[in-house]
Amino acid sequence: MMIASTANKRVKEVAALTKKARYRNEEGVFVVEGPRMFAEIPADRLVHVYATESFLKENETLRRAAASGLADTVTEEVLRAMSDTQTPQGVLAVVKQYRYSLAGILKQRGAAMLLFLEGLQDPGNLGTILRAGEGAGVTGIIMDGRTADIYSPKVIRSTMGSVFRVPFVRTEDFAAALTEAKKAGIRLAAAHLKGSVAYDTVDYTGPVGFLIGNEAAGLSGEAAETADMRVRIPMAGQVESLNASVAASVLMYEAARQRRHQAARQ
Amino acid sequence: MMIASTANKRVKEVAALTKKARYRNEEGVFVVEGPRMFAEIPADRLVHVYATESFLKENETLRRAAASGLADTVTEEVLRAMSDTQTPQGVLAVVKQYRYSLAGILKQRGAAMLLFLEGLQDPGNLGTILRAGEGAGVTGIIMDGRTADIYSPKVIRSTMGSVFRVPFVRTEDFAAALTEAKKAGIRLAAAHLKGSVAYDTVDYTGPVGFLIGNEAAGLSGEAAETADMRVRIPMAGQVESLNASVAASVLMYEAARQRRHQAARQ
Repeated sequence: MMIASTANKRVKEVAALTKKARYRNEEGVFVVEGPRMFAEIPADRLVHVYATESFLKENETLRRAAASGLADTVTEEVLRAMSDTQTPQGVLAVVKQYRYSLAGILKQRGAAMLLFLEGLQDPGNLGTILRAGEGAGVTGIIMDGRTADIYSPKVIRSTMGSVFRVPFVRTEDFAAALTEAKKAGIRLAAAHLKGSVAYDTVDYTGPVGFLIGNEAAGLSGEAAETADMRVRIPMAGQVESLNASVAASVLMYEAARQRRHQAARQ
Repeated sequence: MMIASTANKRVKEVAALTKKARYRNEEGVFVVEGPRMFAEIPADRLVHVYATESFLKENETLRRAAASGLADTVTEEVLRAMSDTQTPQGVLAVVKQYRYSLAGILKQRGAAMLLFLEGLQDPGNLGTILRAGEGAGVTGIIMDGRTADIYSPKVIRSTMGSVFRVPFVRTEDFAAALTEAKKAGIRLAAAHLKGSVAYDTVDYTGPVGFLIGNEAAGLSGEAAETADMRVRIPMAGQVESLNASVAASVLMYEAARQRRHQAARQ
Protein backbone atom coordinates (compact mmCIF):
# COMPACT_ATOMS: atom_id res chain seq x y z
CA MET A 1 0.00 0.00 0.00
CA MET A 2 1.14 3.52 -0.75
CA ILE A 3 0.38 6.14 1.90
CA ALA A 4 0.51 9.59 0.33
CA SER A 5 -1.54 11.72 2.72
CA THR A 6 -0.41 13.00 6.12
CA ALA A 7 -4.10 12.90 7.09
CA ASN A 8 -4.02 9.09 6.94
CA LYS A 9 -4.97 7.49 10.25
CA ARG A 10 -1.83 5.36 10.43
CA VAL A 11 0.39 8.39 9.93
CA LYS A 12 -1.17 9.94 13.00
CA GLU A 13 -0.78 6.73 14.95
CA VAL A 14 2.93 6.44 14.17
CA ALA A 15 3.47 10.14 14.89
CA ALA A 16 1.84 9.58 18.29
CA LEU A 17 4.15 6.60 18.93
CA THR A 18 7.11 8.82 18.09
CA LYS A 19 6.01 11.60 20.43
CA LYS A 20 4.22 9.98 23.36
CA ALA A 21 5.80 7.61 25.88
CA ARG A 22 2.42 6.65 27.28
CA TYR A 23 1.04 5.64 23.89
CA ARG A 24 4.21 3.63 23.16
CA ASN A 25 3.80 1.76 26.42
CA GLU A 26 0.11 1.09 25.90
CA GLU A 27 0.84 -0.36 22.48
CA GLY A 28 4.02 -2.14 23.63
CA VAL A 29 6.04 -0.84 20.68
CA PHE A 30 8.55 1.87 19.79
CA VAL A 31 9.76 3.65 16.66
CA VAL A 32 13.13 3.17 14.97
CA GLU A 33 14.28 5.62 12.31
CA GLY A 34 16.86 5.63 9.53
CA PRO A 35 18.62 2.94 7.52
CA ARG A 36 21.47 2.38 9.91
CA MET A 37 19.26 1.52 12.89
CA PHE A 38 16.81 -0.28 10.60
CA ALA A 39 19.54 -2.71 9.61
CA GLU A 40 20.00 -3.75 13.25
CA ILE A 41 16.37 -4.57 14.10
CA PRO A 42 16.05 -8.27 15.01
CA ALA A 43 13.56 -9.88 12.59
CA ASP A 44 11.30 -11.20 15.35
CA ARG A 45 10.83 -7.68 16.74
CA LEU A 46 9.61 -6.03 13.57
CA VAL A 47 5.95 -4.98 13.64
CA HIS A 48 5.75 -2.76 10.58
CA VAL A 49 7.94 -0.73 8.24
CA TYR A 50 7.25 2.51 6.41
CA ALA A 51 9.71 3.38 3.66
CA THR A 52 9.99 5.64 0.66
CA GLU A 53 9.83 4.01 -2.74
CA SER A 54 13.48 4.71 -3.46
CA PHE A 55 14.59 3.18 -0.14
CA LEU A 56 12.39 0.14 -0.74
CA LYS A 57 13.95 -0.41 -4.15
CA GLU A 58 17.44 -0.64 -2.77
CA ASN A 59 16.68 -2.84 0.21
CA GLU A 60 16.25 -6.58 -0.33
CA THR A 61 15.02 -7.31 3.25
CA LEU A 62 12.44 -4.62 2.88
CA ARG A 63 11.16 -5.88 -0.47
CA ARG A 64 10.52 -9.22 1.19
CA ALA A 65 8.76 -7.50 4.10
CA ALA A 66 6.58 -5.58 1.67
CA ALA A 67 5.68 -8.77 -0.16
CA SER A 68 4.47 -10.30 3.11
CA GLY A 69 2.45 -7.23 4.06
CA LEU A 70 4.91 -6.01 6.71
CA ALA A 71 5.89 -2.84 4.86
CA ASP A 72 4.15 0.11 3.25
CA THR A 73 5.46 2.72 0.88
CA VAL A 74 5.13 6.33 1.99
CA THR A 75 6.03 9.70 0.54
CA GLU A 76 8.89 11.78 1.97
CA GLU A 77 6.29 14.14 3.39
CA VAL A 78 4.41 11.34 5.15
CA LEU A 79 7.64 9.96 6.57
CA ARG A 80 8.52 13.40 7.95
CA ALA A 81 5.09 13.64 9.56
CA MET A 82 5.63 10.29 11.30
CA SER A 83 9.19 11.01 12.30
CA ASP A 84 11.05 12.73 15.11
CA THR A 85 13.64 14.20 12.74
CA GLN A 86 13.49 16.62 9.83
CA THR A 87 15.28 14.15 7.58
CA PRO A 88 14.13 10.62 8.39
CA GLN A 89 16.35 9.12 5.65
CA GLY A 90 13.86 6.92 3.90
CA VAL A 91 12.76 4.42 6.52
CA LEU A 92 10.95 4.12 9.83
CA ALA A 93 9.91 0.97 11.66
CA VAL A 94 7.53 0.11 14.46
CA VAL A 95 9.24 -2.41 16.73
CA LYS A 96 8.07 -4.55 19.67
CA GLN A 97 9.20 -3.41 23.12
CA TYR A 98 11.36 -5.73 25.24
CA ARG A 99 10.17 -7.48 28.38
CA TYR A 100 13.18 -8.29 30.51
CA SER A 101 12.90 -8.98 34.23
CA LEU A 102 15.30 -8.13 37.01
CA ALA A 103 15.27 -11.80 38.04
CA GLY A 104 16.24 -12.80 34.51
CA ILE A 105 19.04 -10.23 34.41
CA LEU A 106 20.37 -11.44 37.76
CA LYS A 107 20.23 -15.10 36.74
CA GLN A 108 22.58 -14.78 33.75
CA ARG A 109 25.76 -16.83 33.81
CA GLY A 110 29.21 -15.26 34.11
CA ALA A 111 30.30 -12.31 36.24
CA ALA A 112 27.55 -9.70 36.17
CA MET A 113 28.32 -6.10 35.25
CA LEU A 114 25.17 -4.14 35.91
CA LEU A 115 24.34 -0.46 35.65
CA PHE A 116 21.79 1.15 37.95
CA LEU A 117 20.60 4.49 36.60
CA GLU A 118 18.73 6.82 38.95
CA GLY A 119 17.00 9.89 37.53
CA LEU A 120 19.19 10.12 34.45
CA GLN A 121 17.39 12.81 32.44
CA ASP A 122 19.23 13.39 29.19
CA PRO A 123 18.16 11.06 26.36
CA GLY A 124 21.55 11.43 24.63
CA ASN A 125 23.32 10.36 27.83
CA LEU A 126 21.06 7.34 28.26
CA GLY A 127 21.57 6.16 24.69
CA THR A 128 25.31 6.73 24.86
CA ILE A 129 25.46 4.71 28.08
CA LEU A 130 23.68 1.76 26.46
CA ARG A 131 26.11 1.87 23.56
CA ALA A 132 29.22 2.13 25.75
CA GLY A 133 27.70 -0.45 28.10
CA GLU A 134 27.37 -3.05 25.37
CA GLY A 135 30.96 -2.28 24.34
CA ALA A 136 32.24 -2.76 27.88
CA GLY A 137 30.31 -5.99 28.37
CA VAL A 138 27.46 -4.82 30.60
CA THR A 139 25.03 -7.65 31.38
CA GLY A 140 22.02 -5.51 32.28
CA ILE A 141 20.76 -1.99 32.93
CA ILE A 142 18.28 -1.16 35.68
CA MET A 143 16.56 2.24 35.52
CA ASP A 144 14.38 3.98 38.09
CA GLY A 145 11.04 5.57 37.20
CA ARG A 146 12.52 9.08 36.82
CA THR A 147 15.10 8.07 34.21
CA ALA A 148 14.38 9.23 30.65
CA ASP A 149 12.17 6.92 28.57
CA ILE A 150 14.49 4.43 26.88
CA TYR A 151 12.08 4.15 23.94
CA SER A 152 12.16 7.84 23.05
CA PRO A 153 13.50 8.37 19.51
CA LYS A 154 16.52 10.35 20.70
CA VAL A 155 17.61 7.58 23.09
CA ILE A 156 17.07 4.92 20.42
CA ARG A 157 19.22 6.86 17.94
CA SER A 158 22.05 7.39 20.44
CA THR A 159 22.20 3.67 21.27
CA MET A 160 23.28 2.92 17.67
CA GLY A 161 21.54 -0.45 17.99
CA SER A 162 22.59 -1.46 21.50
CA VAL A 163 18.96 -1.13 22.62
CA PHE A 164 18.32 -4.34 20.65
CA ARG A 165 20.99 -6.27 22.54
CA VAL A 166 21.55 -5.03 26.11
CA PRO A 167 18.96 -6.32 28.62
CA PHE A 168 17.28 -3.52 30.57
CA VAL A 169 14.46 -3.07 33.01
CA ARG A 170 12.67 -0.04 34.42
CA THR A 171 11.39 -0.21 37.97
CA GLU A 172 9.32 2.03 40.19
CA ASP A 173 10.96 0.41 43.21
CA PHE A 174 14.63 1.19 42.68
CA ALA A 175 15.55 0.53 46.33
CA ALA A 176 14.11 -2.99 46.11
CA ALA A 177 16.08 -3.65 42.92
CA LEU A 178 19.31 -2.62 44.65
CA THR A 179 18.55 -4.92 47.57
CA GLU A 180 17.67 -7.76 45.22
CA ALA A 181 20.99 -7.38 43.39
CA LYS A 182 22.93 -7.37 46.66
CA LYS A 183 21.16 -10.56 47.73
CA ALA A 184 22.26 -12.11 44.42
CA GLY A 185 25.88 -11.46 45.44
CA ILE A 186 26.49 -8.35 43.37
CA ARG A 187 28.75 -5.69 44.90
CA LEU A 188 27.31 -2.23 44.35
CA ALA A 189 29.69 0.66 43.60
CA ALA A 190 28.07 4.11 43.63
CA ALA A 191 29.70 6.78 41.46
CA HIS A 192 29.94 9.63 43.93
CA LEU A 193 31.72 13.00 43.93
CA LYS A 194 32.50 12.50 47.61
CA GLY A 195 33.38 8.83 47.27
CA SER A 196 35.85 7.58 49.86
CA VAL A 197 37.75 5.38 47.42
CA ALA A 198 39.28 6.10 43.98
CA TYR A 199 37.43 4.05 41.36
CA ASP A 200 40.63 2.51 40.02
CA THR A 201 41.71 0.97 43.32
CA VAL A 202 38.71 -1.39 43.52
CA ASP A 203 38.55 -4.94 42.14
CA TYR A 204 35.67 -5.27 39.65
CA THR A 205 36.44 -8.78 38.39
CA GLY A 206 33.61 -10.29 40.45
CA PRO A 207 29.89 -9.53 40.01
CA VAL A 208 29.49 -5.77 40.20
CA GLY A 209 26.85 -3.08 39.74
CA PHE A 210 27.62 0.60 39.12
CA LEU A 211 25.17 3.23 40.38
CA ILE A 212 24.93 6.42 38.31
CA GLY A 213 22.76 9.34 39.41
CA ASN A 214 21.04 12.35 37.93
CA GLU A 215 23.17 14.73 35.83
CA ALA A 216 22.77 17.66 38.22
CA ALA A 217 21.85 16.17 41.59
CA GLY A 218 23.76 12.87 41.50
CA LEU A 219 22.48 9.83 43.39
CA SER A 220 19.89 10.03 46.15
CA GLY A 221 21.23 9.56 49.66
CA GLU A 222 19.25 6.35 49.94
CA ALA A 223 20.79 4.78 46.83
CA ALA A 224 24.31 5.90 47.74
CA GLU A 225 23.92 4.39 51.22
CA THR A 226 22.59 1.09 49.93
CA ALA A 227 25.73 0.68 47.83
CA ASP A 228 28.64 -1.36 49.23
CA MET A 229 31.04 1.47 48.43
CA ARG A 230 31.14 4.97 47.00
CA VAL A 231 33.75 5.37 44.31
CA ARG A 232 35.20 8.65 43.16
CA ILE A 233 36.66 9.40 39.74
CA PRO A 234 39.67 11.63 40.46
CA MET A 235 39.39 14.98 38.67
CA ALA A 236 42.20 17.38 37.88
CA GLY A 237 41.75 21.10 37.37
CA GLN A 238 38.58 22.73 38.58
CA VAL A 239 36.16 20.16 37.17
CA GLU A 240 33.32 19.56 39.59
CA SER A 241 31.82 16.54 37.91
CA LEU A 242 31.93 14.56 34.69
CA ASN A 243 29.15 14.11 32.17
CA ALA A 244 27.06 11.11 33.32
CA SER A 245 27.79 9.04 30.22
CA VAL A 246 31.52 9.75 30.55
CA ALA A 247 31.52 8.75 34.24
CA ALA A 248 29.60 5.54 33.52
CA SER A 249 31.92 4.69 30.63
CA VAL A 250 35.11 5.27 32.63
CA LEU A 251 33.81 2.92 35.35
CA MET A 252 32.56 0.22 32.98
CA TYR A 253 35.74 0.29 30.93
CA GLU A 254 37.87 0.02 34.05
CA ALA A 255 35.91 -3.13 34.97
CA ALA A 256 36.33 -4.44 31.41
CA ARG A 257 40.06 -3.70 31.53
CA GLN A 258 40.49 -5.59 34.82
CA ARG A 259 38.52 -8.56 33.52
CA ARG A 260 40.56 -8.75 30.30
CA HIS A 261 43.84 -8.55 32.20
CA GLN A 262 42.67 -11.20 34.67
CA ALA A 263 41.63 -13.49 31.82
CA ALA A 264 45.05 -12.98 30.19
CA ARG A 265 46.78 -14.04 33.41
CA GLN A 266 44.79 -17.28 33.74
CA MET B 1 21.47 51.29 31.20
CA MET B 2 18.25 49.36 30.78
CA ILE B 3 17.68 47.75 27.37
CA ALA B 4 13.99 47.00 26.93
CA SER B 5 13.59 46.72 23.15
CA THR B 6 14.64 43.77 20.99
CA ALA B 7 15.14 46.32 18.19
CA ASN B 8 18.11 47.79 20.08
CA LYS B 9 21.32 47.68 18.04
CA ARG B 10 23.27 45.90 20.77
CA VAL B 11 20.65 43.17 21.06
CA LYS B 12 21.17 42.43 17.38
CA GLU B 13 24.93 42.45 17.80
CA VAL B 14 24.85 39.96 20.66
CA ALA B 15 22.35 37.75 18.82
CA ALA B 16 24.74 37.72 15.85
CA LEU B 17 27.62 36.74 18.16
CA THR B 18 25.48 33.89 19.48
CA LYS B 19 24.61 32.63 16.01
CA LYS B 20 27.56 33.35 13.74
CA ALA B 21 31.03 31.84 14.10
CA ARG B 22 32.49 34.28 11.59
CA TYR B 23 31.21 37.32 13.47
CA ARG B 24 32.52 35.89 16.77
CA ASN B 25 35.95 35.44 15.22
CA GLU B 26 36.01 38.92 13.65
CA GLU B 27 35.16 40.44 17.01
CA GLY B 28 37.42 38.07 18.96
CA VAL B 29 34.72 37.29 21.52
CA PHE B 30 32.12 34.64 22.37
CA VAL B 31 28.90 34.43 24.36
CA VAL B 32 28.43 32.68 27.70
CA GLU B 33 24.93 32.03 29.03
CA GLY B 34 23.39 31.22 32.39
CA PRO B 35 24.42 31.77 36.01
CA ARG B 36 26.45 28.60 36.39
CA MET B 37 28.80 29.36 33.49
CA PHE B 38 28.77 33.06 34.35
CA ALA B 39 30.25 32.26 37.75
CA GLU B 40 33.27 30.63 36.09
CA ILE B 41 34.26 33.47 33.73
CA PRO B 42 37.76 34.73 34.63
CA ALA B 43 37.48 38.45 35.45
CA ASP B 44 40.10 39.52 32.89
CA ARG B 45 38.07 37.90 30.09
CA LEU B 46 34.80 39.71 30.70
CA VAL B 47 33.83 42.20 27.99
CA HIS B 48 30.22 42.90 28.91
CA VAL B 49 27.31 41.42 30.82
CA TYR B 50 23.59 41.57 30.16
CA ALA B 51 21.37 40.52 33.04
CA THR B 52 17.78 40.79 34.16
CA GLU B 53 17.07 43.11 37.07
CA SER B 54 16.25 40.23 39.40
CA PHE B 55 19.49 38.41 38.56
CA LEU B 56 21.48 41.63 39.02
CA LYS B 57 19.98 42.16 42.46
CA GLU B 58 21.13 38.79 43.73
CA ASN B 59 24.64 38.91 42.32
CA GLU B 60 27.30 40.93 44.12
CA THR B 61 29.97 40.57 41.34
CA LEU B 62 27.44 41.76 38.83
CA ARG B 63 26.41 44.80 40.85
CA ARG B 64 30.06 45.86 40.91
CA ALA B 65 30.32 45.25 37.16
CA ALA B 66 27.23 47.37 36.58
CA ALA B 67 28.66 50.17 38.70
CA SER B 68 31.78 50.23 36.54
CA GLY B 69 29.79 50.25 33.29
CA LEU B 70 30.49 46.58 32.43
CA ALA B 71 26.89 45.45 32.81
CA ASP B 72 23.49 46.42 31.49
CA THR B 73 20.05 45.45 32.64
CA VAL B 74 17.80 43.81 30.08
CA THR B 75 14.26 42.44 30.04
CA GLU B 76 13.59 38.68 29.84
CA GLU B 77 12.42 39.21 26.27
CA VAL B 78 15.62 41.01 25.27
CA LEU B 79 17.72 38.29 26.88
CA ARG B 80 15.84 35.63 24.93
CA ALA B 81 16.43 37.55 21.71
CA MET B 82 20.19 37.60 22.41
CA SER B 83 20.37 34.02 23.55
CA ASP B 84 20.77 30.59 22.01
CA THR B 85 18.28 29.03 24.46
CA GLN B 86 14.61 29.54 25.18
CA THR B 87 15.33 30.09 28.87
CA PRO B 88 18.59 32.01 29.26
CA GLN B 89 18.25 32.06 33.07
CA GLY B 90 18.86 35.72 33.74
CA VAL B 91 22.38 36.37 32.49
CA LEU B 92 24.49 36.41 29.36
CA ALA B 93 28.07 37.62 28.97
CA VAL B 94 30.31 38.58 26.10
CA VAL B 95 33.77 37.14 26.75
CA LYS B 96 37.17 37.58 25.08
CA GLN B 97 38.37 34.64 22.97
CA TYR B 98 41.58 32.85 23.92
CA ARG B 99 44.81 33.03 21.93
CA TYR B 100 46.87 29.96 22.69
CA SER B 101 49.61 28.76 20.36
CA LEU B 102 50.71 25.22 19.57
CA ALA B 103 54.26 26.20 20.54
CA GLY B 104 53.00 27.42 23.92
CA ILE B 105 51.02 24.23 24.48
CA LEU B 106 54.06 22.10 23.60
CA LYS B 107 56.38 24.10 25.86
CA GLN B 108 54.46 23.45 29.09
CA ARG B 109 56.29 21.67 31.90
CA GLY B 110 55.38 18.15 33.02
CA ALA B 111 54.32 15.17 30.93
CA ALA B 112 52.05 16.40 28.15
CA MET B 113 48.67 14.82 27.59
CA LEU B 114 47.32 16.27 24.38
CA LEU B 115 44.20 15.64 22.38
CA PHE B 116 44.16 16.01 18.61
CA LEU B 117 40.62 16.28 17.25
CA GLU B 118 40.07 15.81 13.54
CA GLY B 119 36.68 16.66 12.03
CA LEU B 120 34.76 16.23 15.27
CA GLN B 121 31.31 17.54 14.30
CA ASP B 122 29.00 17.33 17.29
CA PRO B 123 29.13 20.39 19.59
CA GLY B 124 27.96 18.30 22.58
CA ASN B 125 30.81 15.84 22.01
CA LEU B 126 33.38 18.63 21.75
CA GLY B 127 32.21 20.31 24.95
CA THR B 128 32.04 17.01 26.82
CA ILE B 129 35.59 16.19 25.69
CA LEU B 130 36.91 19.50 27.04
CA ARG B 131 35.20 18.84 30.37
CA ALA B 132 36.45 15.24 30.65
CA GLY B 133 39.83 16.38 29.36
CA GLU B 134 40.29 18.90 32.15
CA GLY B 135 39.22 16.20 34.63
CA ALA B 136 41.77 13.73 33.26
CA GLY B 137 44.57 16.31 33.26
CA VAL B 138 44.82 17.12 29.56
CA THR B 139 47.44 19.81 28.90
CA GLY B 140 46.11 20.99 25.52
CA ILE B 141 43.62 20.34 22.73
CA ILE B 142 44.49 20.76 19.05
CA MET B 143 41.58 20.89 16.58
CA ASP B 144 41.61 20.80 12.79
CA GLY B 145 39.65 23.27 10.67
CA ARG B 146 36.69 20.90 10.21
CA THR B 147 36.06 20.41 13.92
CA ALA B 148 32.97 22.17 15.34
CA ASP B 149 33.49 25.77 16.44
CA ILE B 150 34.58 25.65 20.06
CA TYR B 151 32.94 29.05 20.70
CA SER B 152 29.44 27.95 19.65
CA PRO B 153 26.99 28.29 22.55
CA LYS B 154 26.24 24.56 22.67
CA VAL B 155 29.94 23.68 23.00
CA ILE B 156 30.45 26.35 25.66
CA ARG B 157 27.52 25.01 27.69
CA SER B 158 28.72 21.39 27.50
CA THR B 159 32.20 22.34 28.72
CA MET B 160 30.72 23.39 32.08
CA GLY B 161 33.52 25.94 32.37
CA SER B 162 36.47 23.88 31.14
CA VAL B 163 36.71 26.17 28.09
CA PHE B 164 38.07 28.82 30.47
CA ARG B 165 40.87 26.56 31.68
CA VAL B 166 42.03 24.00 29.10
CA PRO B 167 44.43 25.44 26.48
CA PHE B 168 43.29 24.80 22.92
CA VAL B 169 44.23 25.78 19.42
CA ARG B 170 42.57 25.41 16.05
CA THR B 171 44.77 24.87 13.02
CA GLU B 172 44.19 24.65 9.30
CA ASP B 173 47.37 22.58 9.01
CA PHE B 174 46.60 19.57 11.19
CA ALA B 175 49.34 17.43 9.63
CA ALA B 176 51.96 20.05 10.52
CA ALA B 177 50.67 20.17 14.11
CA LEU B 178 51.04 16.40 14.42
CA THR B 179 54.59 16.56 13.08
CA GLU B 180 55.42 19.44 15.41
CA ALA B 181 54.18 17.46 18.41
CA LYS B 182 56.21 14.40 17.40
CA LYS B 183 59.32 16.57 17.10
CA ALA B 184 58.65 17.79 20.63
CA GLY B 185 58.92 14.18 21.84
CA ILE B 186 55.21 13.44 22.15
CA ARG B 187 54.11 9.90 21.25
CA LEU B 188 50.94 9.96 19.19
CA ALA B 189 48.29 7.29 19.80
CA ALA B 190 45.47 7.24 17.25
CA ALA B 191 42.11 5.89 18.43
CA HIS B 192 41.30 3.48 15.65
CA LEU B 193 38.70 0.74 15.17
CA LYS B 194 41.33 -1.38 13.43
CA GLY B 195 44.11 -0.50 15.84
CA SER B 196 46.76 -3.18 16.18
CA VAL B 197 47.16 -2.75 19.93
CA ALA B 198 44.61 -2.69 22.78
CA TYR B 199 44.60 0.80 24.34
CA ASP B 200 45.20 -0.56 27.84
CA THR B 201 48.45 -2.34 27.01
CA VAL B 202 50.32 0.88 26.17
CA ASP B 203 52.33 3.04 28.60
CA TYR B 204 50.98 6.59 28.67
CA THR B 205 53.06 7.91 31.56
CA GLY B 206 55.37 9.82 29.20
CA PRO B 207 54.33 12.71 26.93
CA VAL B 208 51.40 11.49 24.85
CA GLY B 209 48.85 12.78 22.35
CA PHE B 210 45.56 11.01 21.56
CA LEU B 211 44.10 11.39 18.06
CA ILE B 212 40.30 11.29 17.83
CA GLY B 213 38.51 11.40 14.48
CA ASN B 214 35.14 12.30 13.07
CA GLU B 215 32.07 10.63 14.64
CA ALA B 216 31.13 8.72 11.48
CA ALA B 217 34.30 8.50 9.39
CA GLY B 218 36.97 8.27 12.09
CA LEU B 219 40.47 9.61 11.46
CA SER B 220 41.83 10.36 8.01
CA GLY B 221 44.37 7.87 6.69
CA GLU B 222 47.01 10.58 6.80
CA ALA B 223 46.49 11.35 10.49
CA ALA B 224 46.30 7.68 11.47
CA GLU B 225 49.57 6.99 9.63
CA THR B 226 51.37 9.92 11.19
CA ALA B 227 50.60 8.52 14.65
CA ASP B 228 53.21 6.35 16.37
CA MET B 229 50.57 3.70 17.05
CA ARG B 230 46.93 2.92 16.45
CA VAL B 231 45.14 1.88 19.60
CA ARG B 232 41.88 -0.03 19.73
CA ILE B 233 39.33 0.07 22.53
CA PRO B 234 38.10 -3.54 22.83
CA MET B 235 34.35 -3.79 22.31
CA ALA B 236 32.10 -6.61 23.42
CA GLY B 237 28.78 -7.48 21.80
CA GLN B 238 28.06 -6.10 18.35
CA VAL B 239 29.15 -2.53 19.02
CA GLU B 240 30.93 -1.11 16.00
CA SER B 241 32.28 2.03 17.61
CA LEU B 242 31.95 4.17 20.71
CA ASN B 243 30.68 7.73 20.92
CA ALA B 244 33.66 10.04 20.27
CA SER B 245 33.51 11.68 23.71
CA VAL B 246 33.32 8.27 25.39
CA ALA B 247 36.31 6.95 23.40
CA ALA B 248 38.36 10.08 24.18
CA SER B 249 37.44 9.85 27.87
CA VAL B 250 38.31 6.17 28.18
CA LEU B 251 41.76 6.87 26.68
CA MET B 252 42.45 10.00 28.73
CA TYR B 253 41.33 8.37 31.96
CA GLU B 254 43.51 5.34 31.28
CA ALA B 255 46.47 7.71 30.94
CA ALA B 256 45.43 9.51 34.14
CA ARG B 257 45.10 6.16 35.95
CA GLN B 258 48.58 5.05 34.89
CA ARG B 259 50.08 8.38 35.93
CA ARG B 260 48.43 8.28 39.35
CA HIS B 261 49.55 4.71 39.95
CA GLN B 262 53.08 5.55 38.83
CA ALA B 263 53.19 8.56 41.15
CA ALA B 264 51.96 6.36 44.02
CA ARG B 265 54.82 3.91 43.41
CA GLN B 266 57.52 6.60 43.46
